[in-house]
Amino acid sequence: MPKYVYDFTEGNKDLRDLLGGKGANLAEMTNLGLPVPPGFTITAEACRRYLEDGGLPDGLQDEVDAHLAALETGMGKRLGAADDPLLVSVRSGAKYSMPGMMETVLNIGLNDESVQGLAKQAGDERFAWDSFRRLIQMFGKTVLDIDGELFENAIDEAKRSKGVDSDLDLEAADFQRLVDTYKGIVREHTGSDFPSDPRTQMRLAVEAVFSSWDAPRAIIYRRQERIPADLGTAVNIVAMVFGNLGMESGTGVAFTRDPGTGQRGVYGDYLQNAQGEDVVAGIRNTVPLQDLEGIDSESYRELLEIMKTLENHYRDLCDIEFTIERGKLWMLQTRVGKRTAAAAFRIATQLVDQGLIDLDEAVSRVTGDQLAQLMFPRFDVGADLKRIAKGMNASPGAAVGKAVFSSERAKELADQGEAVILVRRETTPDDLVGMIAAQGVLTSRGGKTSHAAVVARGMGKTCVCGAEELEVDGQERRFTGPGGVVVEEGDVLSIDGSTGEVYLGEVPVMASPVVEYFEGTGERGDELVEAVHRIMTHADGRRRLAVRANADNPEDAARARRFGAQGIGLCRTEHMFLGDRRQLVEDLILAGRGEERRAALDALEPLQKSDFVGLLAAMDGLPVTIRLIDPPLHEFLPDLTALSVKVALAGADASPRDRRLLEAVKRLHEENPMLGLRGVRLGLVIPGLFAMQVRAIAEAAAERTAAGGSPRAEIMIPLVSAVQELEGVRDEAERILAEAGVEAEIGTMIEVPRAALTAGQIAEAAAFFSFGTNDLTQMTWGFSRDDVEAAFFSRYLDLGIFGVSPFESIDRSGVGRLMSIAVAEGRATRPGIKLGICGEHGGDPDSVHFCHEIGLDYVSCSPFRVPVARLEAGRAALAEGSTDSR
Amino acid sequence: MPKYVYDFTEGNKDLRDLLGGKGANLAEMTNLGLPVPPGFTITAEACRRYLEDGGLPDGLQDEVDAHLAALETGMGKRLGAADDPLLVSVRSGAKYSMPGMMETVLNIGLNDESVQGLAKQAGDERFAWDSFRRLIQMFGKTVLDIDGELFENAIDEAKRSKGVDSDLDLEAADFQRLVDTYKGIVREHTGSDFPSDPRTQMRLAVEAVFSSWDAPRAIIYRRQERIPADLGTAVNIVAMVFGNLGMESGTGVAFTRDPGTGQRGVYGDYLQNAQGEDVVAGIRNTVPLQDLEGIDSESYRELLEIMKTLENHYRDLCDIEFTIERGKLWMLQTRVGKRTAAAAFRIATQLVDQGLIDLDEAVSRVTGDQLAQLMFPRFDVGADLKRIAKGMNASPGAAVGKAVFSSERAKELADQGEAVILVRRETTPDDLVGMIAAQGVLTSRGGKTSHAAVVARGMGKTCVCGAEELEVDGQERRFTGPGGVVVEEGDVLSIDGSTGEVYLGEVPVMASPVVEYFEGTGERGDELVEAVHRIMTHADGRRRLAVRANADNPEDAARARRFGAQGIGLCRTEHMFLGDRRQLVEDLILAGRGEERRAALDALEPLQKSDFVGLLAAMDGLPVTIRLIDPPLHEFLPDLTALSVKVALAGADASPRDRRLLEAVKRLHEENPMLGLRGVRLGLVIPGLFAMQVRAIAEAAAERTAAGGSPRAEIMIPLVSAVQELEGVRDEAERILAEAGVEAEIGTMIEVPRAALTAGQIAEAAAFFSFGTNDLTQMTWGFSRDDVEAAFFSRYLDLGIFGVSPFESIDRSGVGRLMSIAVAEGRATRPGIKLGICGEHGGDPDSVHFCHEIGLDYVSCSPFRVPVARLEAGRAALAEGSTDSR
Repeated sequence: MPKYVYDFTEGNKDLRDLLGGKGANLAEMTNLGLPVPPGFTITAEACRRYLEDGGLPDGLQDEVDAHLAALETGMGKRLGAADDPLLVSVRSGAKYSMPGMMETVLNIGLNDESVQGLAKQAGDERFAWDSFRRLIQMFGKTVLDIDGELFENAIDEAKRSKGVDSDLDLEAADFQRLVDTYKGIVREHTGSDFPSDPRTQMRLAVEAVFSSWDAPRAIIYRRQERIPADLGTAVNIVAMVFGNLGMESGTGVAFTRDPGTGQRGVYGDYLQNAQGEDVVAGIRNTVPLQDLEGIDSESYRELLEIMKTLENHYRDLCDIEFTIERGKLWMLQTRVGKRTAAAAFRIATQLVDQGLIDLDEAVSRVTGDQLAQLMFPRFDVGADLKRIAKGMNASPGAAVGKAVFSSERAKELADQGEAVILVRRETTPDDLVGMIAAQGVLTSRGGKTSHAAVVARGMGKTCVCGAEELEVDGQERRFTGPGGVVVEEGDVLSIDGSTGEVYLGEVPVMASPVVEYFEGTGERGDELVEAVHRIMTHADGRRRLAVRANADNPEDAARARRFGAQGIGLCRTEHMFLGDRRQLVEDLILAGRGEERRAALDALEPLQKSDFVGLLAAMDGLPVTIRLIDPPLHEFLPDLTALSVKVALAGADASPRDRRLLEAVKRLHEENPMLGLRGVRLGLVIPGLFAMQVRAIAEAAAERTAAGGSPRAEIMIPLVSAVQELEGVRDEAERILAEAGVEAEIGTMIEVPRAALTAGQIAEAAAFFSFGTNDLTQMTWGFSRDDVEAAFFSRYLDLGIFGVSPFESIDRSGVGRLMSIAVAEGRATRPGIKLGICGEHGGDPDSVHFCHEIGLDYVSCSPFRVPVARLEAGRAALAEGSTDSR
Repeated sequence: MPKYVYDFTEGNKDLRDLLGGKGANLAEMTNLGLPVPPGFTITAEACRRYLEDGGLPDGLQDEVDAHLAALETGMGKRLGAADDPLLVSVRSGAKYSMPGMMETVLNIGLNDESVQGLAKQAGDERFAWDSFRRLIQMFGKTVLDIDGELFENAIDEAKRSKGVDSDLDLEAADFQRLVDTYKGIVREHTGSDFPSDPRTQMRLAVEAVFSSWDAPRAIIYRRQERIPADLGTAVNIVAMVFGNLGMESGTGVAFTRDPGTGQRGVYGDYLQNAQGEDVVAGIRNTVPLQDLEGIDSESYRELLEIMKTLENHYRDLCDIEFTIERGKLWMLQTRVGKRTAAAAFRIATQLVDQGLIDLDEAVSRVTGDQLAQLMFPRFDVGADLKRIAKGMNASPGAAVGKAVFSSERAKELADQGEAVILVRRETTPDDLVGMIAAQGVLTSRGGKTSHAAVVARGMGKTCVCGAEELEVDGQERRFTGPGGVVVEEGDVLSIDGSTGEVYLGEVPVMASPVVEYFEGTGERGDELVEAVHRIMTHADGRRRLAVRANADNPEDAARARRFGAQGIGLCRTEHMFLGDRRQLVEDLILAGRGEERRAALDALEPLQKSDFVGLLAAMDGLPVTIRLIDPPLHEFLPDLTALSVKVALAGADASPRDRRLLEAVKRLHEENPMLGLRGVRLGLVIPGLFAMQVRAIAEAAAERTAAGGSPRAEIMIPLVSAVQELEGVRDEAERILAEAGVEAEIGTMIEVPRAALTAGQIAEAAAFFSFGTNDLTQMTWGFSRDDVEAAFFSRYLDLGIFGVSPFESIDRSGVGRLMSIAVAEGRATRPGIKLGICGEHGGDPDSVHFCHEIGLDYVSCSPFRVPVARLEAGRAALAEGSTDSR
């Protein structure tokens, strides 16, 4: 039989799997000799047994009894004894903190008898009865599942009948009457009396914590955060200490350094004569932690000493909850504390300088997401800001524009060159046009998985959602905010997607000093920039993955190179067909076969060649992977419906070109263009198209070589599903390259499930694979990003079907499995094959780790994400062999 | 070192891998003591070495020399000797016969000297010089790759200068001059003299046969027929015998029974004083084989004896090539002969009755394709037929209708209820509308992989293609045929897609007696029907796969049951939303949320219920798998472009319903509906939709039970990609079933790649899997059938990228691999899980074998294909353990 219960003296911080985060850290502090109230932890293993068997496991009760007895002996009190009762709190504590689970029941052990004993011992009847009513209220709500409002209403009624406004005005007798009322509520809603037996209270509370592991909100949270469903939660039983036993008592929180900036110093808040929940409820104002020195200098000094001990011990910023009971300091909790992105980088390097951690550790302490946050432009917080609301930081960035309240208006103004912010109560798929047209999106309803949030993140568009203080009136085209502020259509707004802040008027946007550093234009010397520099340099030295960029023009390529890209992993040649070249592409499509088509291709070739010359120059000496044209041709033509309406309305006056275009649009129309005539299929069906592109590449490379450059072009064939397709195209390309005397590797995208499944065959004809995970995700899941992201992703996230959109982060079980198959079987056929990824996942931290794990050679992402990928590649290399890769 | 050369006395018929089909059968006949001209076979292994190393393998020449010496000794002649030369033929012979490869060079051994010896020995100078010119012509064309027309032109010139019309009028001197001319052609086009050394002739011919294995046409044929590329071909060296040495000589072909009907008897043709190639060239008319009795009764009796021996030995119909040289009979080739579908069934059971084979063997001797041919309606060949052309039998069936020459006209007449045949020179994607509207398609150009052929087969539409005798004039809307027959638009045509015949006028269509047998309406006693009955009964007893049908209404279900279906594998509930119910579905889509939507669903429920009652009654006692609604809702609404044009043209007069509809169409419009909001996604996003269907199923089952029936409904969820989707829907369905007191299994389609890749998880929530291989093929290959089949499949078939469309037959490497993964991992999770297939592949013979091999429990196909699937399931069970499953 496993050991189910650990005294705080028995555990340590590395036993989080067993004792949960809270229990493990309480044990760690106990063993450090810090003043932790005595107690013990029931393991997560006991919870798992309970959930499987539907009852407490054999032997658990005996162990609990034994530990409780020891606790009673140590404290010199008995649980719920009438004269001088020991009270305990029951607190959940899973490995990862998790909303939706039951958290805490305080004051376990009180009943009609022991409440008298508590009053006597504390010398405070009001305190004792208030504690008792709190127990029944908390227990009723969380253990017995009674609607909490019933208890709140009873308090309100008590205040009303007494004619007072505040709880503070209620006296002992009032609370005593409330206890009776509360007991009635419990009886009415459960059919039983509130359990007066202290051990029964404790047992029921423990079972309630166990059961809350499977509460619906907890399940959905776990799905979203990808926390395994079978971990279970531990439960901590802790002797109660009271910060509300007079002005010599109090409670507070502290940080070992500033979580906002990383500065060392004394940060925290303190509240005299209060319990933790009162701080949260905001009944009175807290004072800065420094003020504790004047209130209780001994406890203050002791606390500072403890904070130093903890930071040296945990080698990181810690946050702390503590209580002072009549001059005696107690530590109730500690953990490695959350911090801002800037603080994370600063703290990591400060700890290196202090000799507490090494640079490897520093790299693993910061994340790509934090680096990305530092790279977004930000509002100048020094400016004269008029903040009018705060919502959720749904999609980062800083956006400024005129408020508009409908998609139509957003499009209209955007078409006139105006920057707009789309403001909606909530968005629907109908708002897509407006979201595309706007600089940013602001909603008053919905959380981080709402339609607006999901779609905006997908677009990389700034979004603040769920700003509930705002009343949005779409009909009247305005919203009202706190303090009666009214914003009409056309008024300028500034929204900060990284913080959720909404400002009235135009807030100046500041470039990120970290971006200036990467660009080489910023000043060095700033502590943050130095920290980023040291960490990035070290990550580069550790990583095994190369990082390339997706870029289609020399400017992007040059920027990517400044950002550290080691080549181009994806140049989309069709992007070179847009703008003023669209006419040439139309000519190509309208051309018949033979001579006419050849002429159209000939007109495009020199333009393509000059594109490639520029790109190869910008990446001279580094590989440049050029993908031949991928999208269906009709993407270069007008929309079928719009053109049909135009021609129908014009009737006999329709222009010949429009008529001819309409015929072509109809001929090329596809029901499912994503699954249509594109990629290698186009190359095989339209003779000369790929050949023109390959010739342009070959001639560009030859020109660069003649100019003394070192061009390293690679030719990539898209949408291959069978090796036979690749063979046909490759043979022709090799012929053209040989004619031009140019060498270039020829490889393929792996973006169709069948390509991954037959990668062993395809590798015979491919010098490299590049995973196109956008298409691969679409086909593996059978949904097109455009169509479904707006239509049902937010619902799927709400239902917990996705933890995260598979377009944001690689779906390891499905798409990832195909990638693993392709890597293994591609390498089996051609051991030296070069393997990379050029889907948008190439810049996603979790996906970069996955690419490292399956052994790719490089990732390629947008230029702006290159530093993120470099950092995460370094972190992935350092995480290798670590058991906990989350 | 392997043995590369086998004398005919050393081989046997089971060595086809090594000796090829021709060589193995020549050896077999030699060992049976039949009169085969002596010779030997160079193995396919030697060919493989040659192709790999680019030269004849070491030791081969020595072996050939030794066998040639033995041959010379046996024949008492030396190869190409001046006085009495031994001549040989060099013939290719791969394991599978294969167009595109070099076939034969006759008369090897002739040169300026030996031609004299041959003339002397034969007593016929003209014969000798003609033989020499044939050698140079055949050798020049096939070994030296000289355009054959040059030789033909030289003969024509010889005849013209002599003023005669026929080769028969040329004399020895003329042929001698032709030999000189031919030698000049060879010199001019190769830069060398025609090789006079007999051994050089032989060696070059052998190498040419080897090289022709990789001729482009052979490569494409192998890809199409899925013949492995590395088999190589054997080469046979055979002593020449001459059927053209006077009226006591001759050549012929024979069948051991009628390949058209299976009747026993003497079938074949004979031509006196001729060689095999003359029969093919049709210089003179052959006589029926029976006439040989009067010409050479001894050879005739000997031949009949040999035919009997061969049929008993091969236990099957054999075809035979033979030559009589001056009264001496020689067997040149035999093989198991091709036959019609009806003959195949008759012969198989006749051989059983003769005790030559057992019923297992009989089942494996017929194919599902043959059975399908017997089930197509056929033209009454007894009617007064006016055949005007013959093209390729591209897609089987019998179609009658008015000739039309454009898609527009086809659609126009079809909309008026007329049956039409679309006649085109060749079709393009633009003809799709017309092909859909027509009963059948007739083209004058293109082969079995032409656009018309591929698309028609995909549609199951009758098609004759490449009827090259027809001159189609689309402008004038008519075609002219042989003999000046002119068919104008509107004239009635009958086309037979099973034979390629084209008839003028309406030919009566006869029902198939085999279908009448399955229906139970035909008369028994017919030999063919009895044969089918015996074979089907035996196949049913052997097969492990159950066979179900895809059916959406009681009529189809009842027919399927008569055809032997053991349940319904797929009922598409959305088919019940068509016709006069479309209005109700429109209402549902236009409805808002809440009450309005509920009312729309309530209106549909009783209709759905009554559908299910009928279906469960028709399949009482057997499982009926009902798939909840699958397609996107906009499929039930008008087309976006058409409605947009309608509303735009109506302007202010547009009806409110049309405006509202247009809004809905726009809202629901998807770029890629195949990858859109459909299947389980609809069920999760539109509350109440699936619930309504499940309730209708539950109530239908309850009603059937109350009426004394045994309903066995199974509920199938489409388009699942993640187990979480299925769980949500399943929980709700189970609740509804429990409320109705009905039991029904709940399972899922596996039709999205991710579902196959995560089948181990999905099996936790699914009682059964049904592979939806249409969608699975679309997503695994990344192409939508509608879009690409017309656009590029014919090109892909031509290029050999597909051997067969993956929509016709399961692509084993890609789609099949996903299926295998899902079978293994689904069963690992849930050992008793029921596994089936309900894509159109369920009725395809090769796919049925694949389903058997991976261990599915059942296949489901259209009612008409049920007998085919039954037969192939039996054959698959019998083929188990056989090494050659092709």
